[in-house]
Amino acid sequence: MIAIDLDEPPVVISVGAPMFAEALVAQAAEPRQVEWSPPVPGTADDLAAIAADPRAAEASAESARRMTTARPYWVDVIPASEALGLGPRDFLHAGPPVTWADACGPMRGALAGAIVYEGLADNVEEAERMAARGDISLAPCHAHATVGPMAGVVSASMPVSVLEDTEHGGRAYCTLNEGLGKVLRYGAYSQEVIDRLRWMERVLGPILAQTLRKRGPVDVSSLIAQALQMGDECHNRNRAATSLLLREITSDLLESGASTADVAAVYRFISGNDHFFLNLSMPAGKVSADAARDIPGSTMVVAMARNGTDFGIQVSGAGDEWFTAPAPVVSGLFLPGFGPEDANPDIGDSTITETSGIGGFAMAAAPAIVRFVGGDVADALQNTLQMYEITLTEHPLYQVPVLGFRGTPAGIDATLVARTGIVPVVNTGIAGREPGIGQVGAGLVTPPVSVFADAVRALAKKVP
Amino acid sequence: MIAIDLDEPPVVISVGAPMFAEALVAQAAEPRQVEWSPPVPGTADDLAAIAADPRAAEASAESARRMTTARPYWVDVIPASEALGLGPRDFLHAGPPVTWADACGPMRGALAGAIVYEGLADNVEEAERMAARGDISLAPCHAHATVGPMAGVVSASMPVSVLEDTEHGGRAYCTLNEGLGKVLRYGAYSQEVIDRLRWMERVLGPILAQTLRKRGPVDVSSLIAQALQMGDECHNRNRAATSLLLREITSDLLESGASTADVAAVYRFISGNDHFFLNLSMPAGKVSADAARDIPGSTMVVAMARNGTDFGIQVSGAGDEWFTAPAPVVSGLFLPGFGPEDANPDIGDSTITETSGIGGFAMAAAPAIVRFVGGDVADALQNTLQMYEITLTEHPLYQVPVLGFRGTPAGIDATLVARTGIVPVVNTGIAGREPGIGQVGAGLVTPPVSVFADAVRALAKKVP
Repeated sequence: MIAIDLDEPPVVISVGAPMFAEALVAQAAEPRQVEWSPPVPGTADDLAAIAADPRAAEASAESARRMTTARPYWVDVIPASEALGLGPRDFLHAGPPVTWADACGPMRGALAGAIVYEGLADNVEEAERMAARGDISLAPCHAHATVGPMAGVVSASMPVSVLEDTEHGGRAYCTLNEGLGKVLRYGAYSQEVIDRLRWMERVLGPILAQTLRKRGPVDVSSLIAQALQMGDECHNRNRAATSLLLREITSDLLESGASTADVAAVYRFISGNDHFFLNLSMPAGKVSADAARDIPGSTMVVAMARNGTDFGIQVSGAGDEWFTAPAPVVSGLFLPGFGPEDANPDIGDSTITETSGIGGFAMAAAPAIVRFVGGDVADALQNTLQMYEITLTEHPLYQVPVLGFRGTPAGIDATLVARTGIVPVVNTGIAGREPGIGQVGAGLVTPPVSVFADAVRALAKKVP
Repeated sequence: MIAIDLDEPPVVISVGAPMFAEALVAQAAEPRQVEWSPPVPGTADDLAAIAADPRAAEASAESARRMTTARPYWVDVIPASEALGLGPRDFLHAGPPVTWADACGPMRGALAGAIVYEGLADNVEEAERMAARGDISLAPCHAHATVGPMAGVVSASMPVSVLEDTEHGGRAYCTLNEGLGKVLRYGAYSQEVIDRLRWMERVLGPILAQTLRKRGPVDVSSLIAQALQMGDECHNRNRAATSLLLREITSDLLESGASTADVAAVYRFISGNDHFFLNLSMPAGKVSADAARDIPGSTMVVAMARNGTDFGIQVSGAGDEWFTAPAPVVSGLFLPGFGPEDANPDIGDSTITETSGIGGFAMAAAPAIVRFVGGDVADALQNTLQMYEITLTEHPLYQVPVLGFRGTPAGIDATLVARTGIVPVVNTGIAGREPGIGQVGAGLVTPPVSVFADAVRALAKKVP
């Protein structure tokens, strides 16, 4: 024993598992608990290698700076053939690469529906046979500067929004949101779905293009910033953002030169769908995250995406490599008549919202979302607070009023995930497992921690 | 000394001033502090008399129940002459009764502007001489089922919105919001102000009336309830509510039969003014509070209003009697070029929002409002929490997500104000002191506690 003279009573600091602190409390001591958990098993050596990389801190900080200074504007709506050079047999899908053989029910449903919509097959059965024979070509949206919610299927004739980052000059693309209920992105392919896609191609897309040409570009990050002060998190709650978007474009829509009937139909279509803005918040996130790609040594996540079979991520310092694991199931609230047994595993590129610092990461700004995805208001606050543990910065533009206007946690650091075991919070819609069903619920999903461990391993190998 | 066997350590309960508890804390005791303050001086006997009234509790509860079950719908827009039977020389104003001689600068400015607008005088100087001679008749809005923001001046030709309470059958009226900057309600009267009023009379009012006839009534309390989940408190922040309102009416506005140019002008006018909805949230509050009037024994406040000279309240159990005191000054943020020396004392009927359980009482739902009225987010939360101390109920429809969807504090009990000394929280715009200036800022105001003490005295005299 060593005797030390102390001016103040000694303080016990307890690190990690709370049982030690609890034992001290039982003995009337007042320990200070420090959160700590061991790194994800198998990552300690890789984390040490990256920590010793002199480039790492600055590279990751630069990624975060680039992503959070992007200023995405909605500049145009044009056919995917023109925007992305898609040929008539080219189809994009959500998530990391997947084959028809491995594709889940809603992904097959959406692809079959898109084949029929493109006029390559007369019916869904014929379309499925074509796809199984390999008569179409499949590629991830993410490989073509594109993102898509849920199945995320993009084909040549679909109109896509063009987002341009005025700060770094990149572009990203996304289809227009179809609305709720039976829609292609949830794997539905009935005639009603195909007819709506054709109306979007012939009326909605061209009129929005005319409106944007008249009005000029729409500042999407400003709308996201405002919507976060109005109870949206811009992934599963887009009511304020859709409302603000309509206010931005309606007077030019009125004067777009289209017929009153078409203008009214376009207005009703957008106003009838609170999620219309999702298909702008997603490419806004994509163009922002893409600005942060390919910085050697950076451990920042630049994509998280699911194809309904696999969950995958990409990190800035590892190029276009995907780190994947089986897609998890979603825990949440189900629509009447559906239950967990009807749910497909996690699907969609919409995790680009969380990747860019909104969505689940901004749930504290959107307490009312718990009515849609489950949980209570305290959970929504806690979800955001916990994400500061695994992110590189706070978004300068996207702020959470109830946290005293603190910036949202932005820029997931794969090494912080591996070090803490804390995985990104994702809220999401739930697709039906069978093709043709559509949405069955919404909830929260826990990404597989192994993809972050795999990314850390790959990053460690690249340390010079 | 008495020796008592205790199973647990004794607990000291400290009531009222915190200095006693602080002294105990200094001696290492852990007192439990209970909030208590003496009643407002001079009210103890009156409070005792009311407490002994067997009707009081049930009567006040019935008032609160009637106010919070009202369902105001926006049903029409018609000229004030038709809605209120105003003759060409009849003018309504905000707050308790006031004469021209006692009217403040912005009230005189608004009245003079309205006299010119009605064509009774060729210029403002002539209008002021008319008013000084008593050539016009003045009455409070509140005496005619009407409310008006700031000066609240209503004249015969102005279009007014008609709100109908489908639950209790009442009606209330309010002019259409003119927008920001130089506007009549802040006492401005330039040609631009008069021209805008004429456009509102000839274009805006009739087109909104056609739109409502096509669409049917708009459920205003539903819009308020949604807006509270989107960061509005529907007094000084109405951005979400105005956006939602536009979504409700735009497709019928498009098909109202008016010319595209007029429709676009109407859309731009409403969309260009986040406060447009205030002139619906106010009459929604008015028709709700009016449903709670004239219940013998009820101590609930049914009106709070200011004319820029006096602050006044009315209580359910004391009929149409006003209890008044000099209007206080507003503490807040000023527009560039203005300071406290430019501010008129508190003015307007917009305190009907706080009376009905929104506005300052719902600030916890609208943390972003502190950027407009001053203070920080913790103040916004605290303002709402404190109002539960002086209100009779929690609003069943108006909920605060961040408080776990707790209903807003609703139904101010004058006896609780007198008993605690806690006065209602009011946030408000600030008018320039001189006629013709317009808005100079926004902030919070502390109503004079004496009006609640006076109301309690009058209620005590009515106890059988």
